[in-house]
Amino acid sequence: MKFEITILGSGAATPTLGRHCSAQAINIGGFHILLDCGESTQTQLRYCRQRLQSFSLIFISHLHGDHLWGLPGMLASMHLCGRTEPVDLFAPPGLKTLLDMLFDLSDTRLAYELRIHELQQTSPTEVFRNDQCSVVAFPLHHSVPTYGFIFEEATPYLNIRKEAIQQYNITADECRLLKLGKDLERPNQPLVPNSQLTHPRRPARRYAYCCDTAFADDIAPTVAGVDLLCLESTFDNSRSDLAEQRRHLTTTQAATIAKEGNVKQLLLTHFSARYKDISTLIAEAQVIFPNTQAAADAASFEIPITNAPV
Amino acid sequence: MKFEITILGSGAATPTLGRHCSAQAINIGGFHILLDCGESTQTQLRYCRQRLQSFSLIFISHLHGDHLWGLPGMLASMHLCGRTEPVDLFAPPGLKTLLDMLFDLSDTRLAYELRIHELQQTSPTEVFRNDQCSVVAFPLHHSVPTYGFIFEEATPYLNIRKEAIQQYNITADECRLLKLGKDLERPNQPLVPNSQLTHPRRPARRYAYCCDTAFADDIAPTVAGVDLLCLESTFDNSRSDLAEQRRHLTTTQAATIAKEGNVKQLLLTHFSARYKDISTLIAEAQVIFPNTQAAADAASFEIPITNAPV
Repeated sequence: MKFEITILGSGAATPTLGRHCSAQAINIGGFHILLDCGESTQTQLRYCRQRLQSFSLIFISHLHGDHLWGLPGMLASMHLCGRTEPVDLFAPPGLKTLLDMLFDLSDTRLAYELRIHELQQTSPTEVFRNDQCSVVAFPLHHSVPTYGFIFEEATPYLNIRKEAIQQYNITADECRLLKLGKDLERPNQPLVPNSQLTHPRRPARRYAYCCDTAFADDIAPTVAGVDLLCLESTFDNSRSDLAEQRRHLTTTQAATIAKEGNVKQLLLTHFSARYKDISTLIAEAQVIFPNTQAAADAASFEIPITNAPV
Repeated sequence: MKFEITILGSGAATPTLGRHCSAQAINIGGFHILLDCGESTQTQLRYCRQRLQSFSLIFISHLHGDHLWGLPGMLASMHLCGRTEPVDLFAPPGLKTLLDMLFDLSDTRLAYELRIHELQQTSPTEVFRNDQCSVVAFPLHHSVPTYGFIFEEATPYLNIRKEAIQQYNITADECRLLKLGKDLERPNQPLVPNSQLTHPRRPARRYAYCCDTAFADDIAPTVAGVDLLCLESTFDNSRSDLAEQRRHLTTTQAATIAKEGNVKQLLLTHFSARYKDISTLIAEAQVIFPNTQAAADAASFEIPITNAPV
């Protein structure tokens, strides 16, 4: 099952020619989620050959413009391109009033239902679940109310042992039930426990996103052990004063969170427009957390399946 | 003196990879004006190598999102990049309330003065004048309050006749006064009238912009005789019902306005995203008004100086 993150924008407050403002598209087993929606997100989706209409779930981390100002156009284009399916939108309080006013002024009436869910949680809370995934929201530490998110794929199916298929001559219907964790039950035959027929369940993959935030001790335990942790790192380590003042992370702080949280991989994003070349930022992070990558516009990151059991 | 229009976006409601939403940059003798500000305008400015901070005057034709939703990011980036010079912004009523709310929600406080002027004129009215140009606003006929604009360069200097310079041995200071229209006055010598020393004054160049609007009889007389007329032509002629319903122009209607207004050149823009190739739209307009060109993103159109006297 696919678990892929496509970077639509990896820049901070001001877009450059190389980096648009924050936005990501997540594909979990064919279910598409939009995460933040900076200006030009709809154009970036076209550029990355992602269908506008495939997104029925949108998360906005906070109401700063560089994470938000592509949203009105995105929602309007969905309408203009004929959408009738509802869209669920999670964001901190205030967005509904804002969108109502924007759409009222521009005489825009969406032909689909836009269901806005205001995030007001004060601790990590599951806010969404369907057959493909679940999403936990948790508060971050920025200058306005801001949320981080953990996206977790649904409990993976069990894999049946090859030798069991031959030994028991397992049918397609029985396969389906075994993958879900049922035992093998046949009339007039002794029950065979699921654990004898399947491999141990692999762990569900998890992707965490924290953008924007100041450094805080509660982030690492919240995202502990995720497969991929995407953190903002607006500034290099020499600008820690600026980072503190604007409530952003430095590369070193981001890498420290990744290390303390013992995550599998770190993905840095939200680079200040002052950096033409971010290789020194990545190098700084890698000193503390070697498995660090840099987000780049239009790049995709697949979270691989690991077969280690839970 | 330069009089150049750079197209930042030439598409209609939904941006495509080839056409961004409406925005244009006008350069009149080094004075820079932004005209509409669809999503991605600030990125398009960078792409066209135009300085964000060079714009101190912005006109928004109407409050539909495809002409507007690049503005919050543009204004915020001006602030983030250190602007202190004021910006004058002309737009139909409602924008001030909207921007106040947006900036309040996103905790944005501009370090420069944003002076918002609400357009409420019911007939063509001069709304701006400085040493380089003047701007007339006039109401159009769209589904929300919408304004067209005529940009006129300041009264051109007079050109002094070559033979007069030699005959009268004219000094640099006298040159300056003659160009402004003064007569040649020297102590104890008879006055030489300006008209004997200078060529007839060339006409001031004018650029008119009407986007968006339904067809109406009052547009042609308002823009009559301009050097370059930019009109929306969202639809081809076969979609005149759709154009009427959505209060847009067809190619044929746009060309008819240009012909009736006896303008020098027509520039079509605001093409519906349904048209991958607009050559047939241009051909339709050229049947009625041959001197028709098509706007394209990042293309520039210079209005040439013609020496025909007023």
